[in-house]
Amino acid sequence: MKIVHIGTSGMIGRAVAAELGTRHEIIAVNRRSGDYQVDIADPSSIARLFNQTGHFDALICTAGEVHFATLQEFSVEQYSIGLKSKLMGQVNLVRSGRKYLRDGGSFTLTSGPTNEDPIPLGTSSAMVNGALEGFVRSAAIELQSDRRINLVSPTMLQESRALYGPFFVGTKPVATPEVVLAYVKSVEGRQTGCVYRVGWSRER
Amino acid sequence: MKIVHIGTSGMIGRAVAAELGTRHEIIAVNRRSGDYQVDIADPSSIARLFNQTGHFDALICTAGEVHFATLQEFSVEQYSIGLKSKLMGQVNLVRSGRKYLRDGGSFTLTSGPTNEDPIPLGTSSAMVNGALEGFVRSAAIELQSDRRINLVSPTMLQESRALYGPFFVGTKPVATPEVVLAYVKSVEGRQTGCVYRVGWSRER
Repeated sequence: MKIVHIGTSGMIGRAVAAELGTRHEIIAVNRRSGDYQVDIADPSSIARLFNQTGHFDALICTAGEVHFATLQEFSVEQYSIGLKSKLMGQVNLVRSGRKYLRDGGSFTLTSGPTNEDPIPLGTSSAMVNGALEGFVRSAAIELQSDRRINLVSPTMLQESRALYGPFFVGTKPVATPEVVLAYVKSVEGRQTGCVYRVGWSRER
Repeated sequence: MKIVHIGTSGMIGRAVAAELGTRHEIIAVNRRSGDYQVDIADPSSIARLFNQTGHFDALICTAGEVHFATLQEFSVEQYSIGLKSKLMGQVNLVRSGRKYLRDGGSFTLTSGPTNEDPIPLGTSSAMVNGALEGFVRSAAIELQSDRRINLVSPTMLQESRALYGPFFVGTKPVATPEVVLAYVKSVEGRQTGCVYRVGWSRER
């Protein structure tokens, strides 16, 4: 398969690209590195990207920004960072990428657990992650020609514990290889409209 | 209680205001009617509203626009209708209203079932409803002084069947008084961070 993978330089993206790269062609796309560059918050940058990549069999996104602040401090502009990047950035990869995704191919997007297991400073993250769940379930019933879409919602990685542990109090971190499995299932399996919640410490 | 209620002219809003109005003071707010007017898609209009209403014990929103179209047809601008109105409109009512909500008071927002029970043309609706669930659960852990926030997610009303039935194929409609109960529970009860899914025909 030819896989366009946006966000191969982060903790998750690196591991996913390493695993899938053993048996597929990975087109690595980042903001400032990789085979091609994209700013997912800018729809015209996404349109340019697909002109460069051409058709593909799968798209993975492990990128997207969100601002963190207290409910008191949050401004409209700060909320729009997450709406433009992590939410509409991924939605626009699907909107524009649809025309380049081959029959039977898949989109795999990335969210996180804060929409159901909220953390302080996380109202924007919660909003964006909840929106992504809704979008993926809904887009799955409209994609045609056996094309699929799934969402991976990993909890905090073991490797990110030092950085994010204080924000995810009482959260059991997950091993990166477990998170990678969800991307493998989405890309190489046949499911669609799924939200793969990986390592969530809490059933709700 | 003094209740600021945005959206008293719609099907749900009218029934909620009628019930709560029997024992509370309702400040009715609509786009072009009511005691005060507001355009919830405009943050400065919301700021002006609270200057006029002053402090209150509860805020209810049963308003908010979303665009419906196929995944193929949806433009970035059409997605932003729902993000600005039903999503950020309600979020900004909370952001700006926080300073006017008395201790122990509550916010009650409104979503819908499409984020978990998707319908054709509904990717924007699904996104917005999912985002509202995440936001409400997350804001609940940050509101202080016993202030609360809940979300009512009603399925299609019996009264809306003629209008919306073709879009909600196979959905059992709910009686309006059942939906009203959820607003009563949110405003007069003590729960917070809840998503009241009323009449959902499908457990997921």
